[in-house]
Amino acid sequence: MARQMIATLLTDFGTRDPYVAAMKGVMIGLCPDVHLVDISHDVPPHDVLAAAFVLAQAAPSFPTGTVHLVVVDPDVGTDRDILAARFGGQVFVFPDNGVISFVAGSMPLEQIVAVRDKRYFATSDPSGTFHGRDILAPVAVRILLGLDLRRLGPQPDKYKLLDLPPVAEPPGELAGQVVYVDHFGNVISNITEAAIRHRWAVPDRVRVFCQGKDYGPLRGTYGHVAAGEPVALINSMGLLEIAVNRDQASRILDARIGTAVRVRGADNAGEKSIAE
Amino acid sequence: MARQMIATLLTDFGTRDPYVAAMKGVMIGLCPDVHLVDISHDVPPHDVLAAAFVLAQAAPSFPTGTVHLVVVDPDVGTDRDILAARFGGQVFVFPDNGVISFVAGSMPLEQIVAVRDKRYFATSDPSGTFHGRDILAPVAVRILLGLDLRRLGPQPDKYKLLDLPPVAEPPGELAGQVVYVDHFGNVISNITEAAIRHRWAVPDRVRVFCQGKDYGPLRGTYGHVAAGEPVALINSMGLLEIAVNRDQASRILDARIGTAVRVRGADNAGEKSIAE
Amino acid sequence: MARQMIATLLTDFGTRDPYVAAMKGVMIGLCPDVHLVDISHDVPPHDVLAAAFVLAQAAPSFPTGTVHLVVVDPDVGTDRDILAARFGGQVFVFPDNGVISFVAGSMPLEQIVAVRDKRYFATSDPSGTFHGRDILAPVAVRILLGLDLRRLGPQPDKYKLLDLPPVAEPPGELAGQVVYVDHFGNVISNITEAAIRHRWAVPDRVRVFCQGKDYGPLRGTYGHVAAGEPVALINSMGLLEIAVNRDQASRILDARIGTAVRVRGADNAGEKSIAE
Repeated sequence: MARQMIATLLTDFGTRDPYVAAMKGVMIGLCPDVHLVDISHDVPPHDVLAAAFVLAQAAPSFPTGTVHLVVVDPDVGTDRDILAARFGGQVFVFPDNGVISFVAGSMPLEQIVAVRDKRYFATSDPSGTFHGRDILAPVAVRILLGLDLRRLGPQPDKYKLLDLPPVAEPPGELAGQVVYVDHFGNVISNITEAAIRHRWAVPDRVRVFCQGKDYGPLRGTYGHVAAGEPVALINSMGLLEIAVNRDQASRILDARIGTAVRVRGADNAGEKSIAE
Repeated sequence: MARQMIATLLTDFGTRDPYVAAMKGVMIGLCPDVHLVDISHDVPPHDVLAAAFVLAQAAPSFPTGTVHLVVVDPDVGTDRDILAARFGGQVFVFPDNGVISFVAGSMPLEQIVAVRDKRYFATSDPSGTFHGRDILAPVAVRILLGLDLRRLGPQPDKYKLLDLPPVAEPPGELAGQVVYVDHFGNVISNITEAAIRHRWAVPDRVRVFCQGKDYGPLRGTYGHVAAGEPVALINSMGLLEIAVNRDQASRILDARIGTAVRVRGADNAGEKSIAE
Repeated sequence: MARQMIATLLTDFGTRDPYVAAMKGVMIGLCPDVHLVDISHDVPPHDVLAAAFVLAQAAPSFPTGTVHLVVVDPDVGTDRDILAARFGGQVFVFPDNGVISFVAGSMPLEQIVAVRDKRYFATSDPSGTFHGRDILAPVAVRILLGLDLRRLGPQPDKYKLLDLPPVAEPPGELAGQVVYVDHFGNVISNITEAAIRHRWAVPDRVRVFCQGKDYGPLRGTYGHVAAGEPVALINSMGLLEIAVNRDQASRILDARIGTAVRVRGADNAGEKSIAE
């Protein structure tokens, strides 16, 4: 079996234009055996937060050695750095704009460099508006082919992280907010299953609140309520989600990025001592 | 030449979220040589009928041994079964919700099992909301790698089929309905070329009716009428279709899923004896 | 390393229907090692001009020997020819409707034939409405597998080119127009960097006009103006583009395909003698 050469692509380029194919052409030209996987090209334009979330949720399913190429890059061509970093055995090549934030919060950083050495670019005179094609794509493939990250440039002093909203822990509740709304309209919060389990002995008995309404206890899946009914659950990402079975929760709840979501212990939820 | 390892994916996940990539990451991790082909991820959410139709139209173009992974699964996590079945030399892995209906109507069933054995899942504790990643994706790849379907679980007593609309055959006509409207707005019925040929000696001379209007005889292709004009034809699926050359027939005809479509013999169409 | 077998697909089929997968199934069935790359399936229906532009912008990033399959084909099934042509070491298989126009204007033609020999089709009785599946897909793969283009059919006397708008060169200015608007709303003209450099000694000092407004000199990238501000630049295609940093220029400028774009020399731009 050939060595795995897997590169993913995550951009806000959409799928109408030649941009994604131009990057793929460069990559295949340098490495015909590369296995390209689209994470998404439908990140809303310039939405670094959405890209950061999608990246961190997709990456854990990929094998060690995968190289993830992220081009959501509203500052392309300015003096922002392009970084290459290894987190948890996978490599990420991305503009230094915070798009790595959720990955950095969930996978261990092993190595990070600023991408500076033009010998590894597709051209010594890259376009000011398409570093994806001229810098990130060839660098990603060269890493797949074995290039040591240290050859690309120096370790940066720091790298940018988004100011992600924290989950507050006032008495009797966890107070988080919506961080993502998916294609089905499912409303995904930043409250983790781990945080709920840490706080309550019988996690299924907590109650979930959003926009002043009580969405009841945690259930196992969408179909555990009738069609059209709301349901709170721990989703496949290990995050608290509010959905409406077979409908769009975001519309029905009037919830969007930043909307408050709260978990409160019911009498029988067995809240643990905060000091615990 | 390496053995073919082709897996297709058909979902209603859309292309913005991490879900499709998560499934692909699992599959490539288990089998780096798998050739992944997207059938579509733009099935309308929870639309089992649309997925069933698209699956049956795409599958015949794939070679023997292809494994088709279908995740249009509004009942994910409930007690509905996941099935793996071989029809016509191809394997389908899908939730038991009727999404196999058009395939089952057009390809011979050779083997079918309920997917039960957790040893073939990605985890012994699958998420309640994402069986695509945790069950169907790893099972599909293990089938590609040679796993005998019988290892997955027992043969089910029955499997679900959608209550598909029949084509009625009153005197002098075939009475069907719209089963799919494509991206171009082409209106596709459940009336087959075979049924028309069975009924009339000169099939091109039948006349096609929809919403009370006569769309004339069958023609060879869209461009056989002027731009903006309607045209009835047998499409590439062998089904009766009404289109408007270079425009959206569904809007212009006001036709949608379930709209009646009728074929009537003209005087010169040579209707055969019903008893024939 | 295996010989590269790269085929791209560019269609107006959208991504909901079985059509794209049907073509890919045929291709993989004939050549399991083919590396398929989607250029786009979101070309607006029947928009030959948009497809022609996208094709010419994507192709140069692909390696020699790539076969590009183009199915934007409103005249499918009529007597329009299907052509196979080699431009600049890459092969294009396409309906003879002008979709090759921008490629033909930028890459050298080396060979061209009409695709006639049915032995290379998927079936001797191709559907009248889906030559992509029945003719172009199998022919593209057979070319990848080494088929000599001359086996497909005779060299045509001529092939169709779109009547592309010229760039006029009245005294003191270049007068072009918008030829493409991308996903970000960036407004792309037909005025090339080369034409500007040919005319002015200090190209950055020209001024760019559209819809009666002055968009100033050429800048290096979007982020060289504040968010929400317009910016003129030479884009990654070597074309004059007007954008709005982090916003949709097409909407803000009220610009669309055909809108006039002008470059005028400022006093310090050093216009060269026309006779030069």
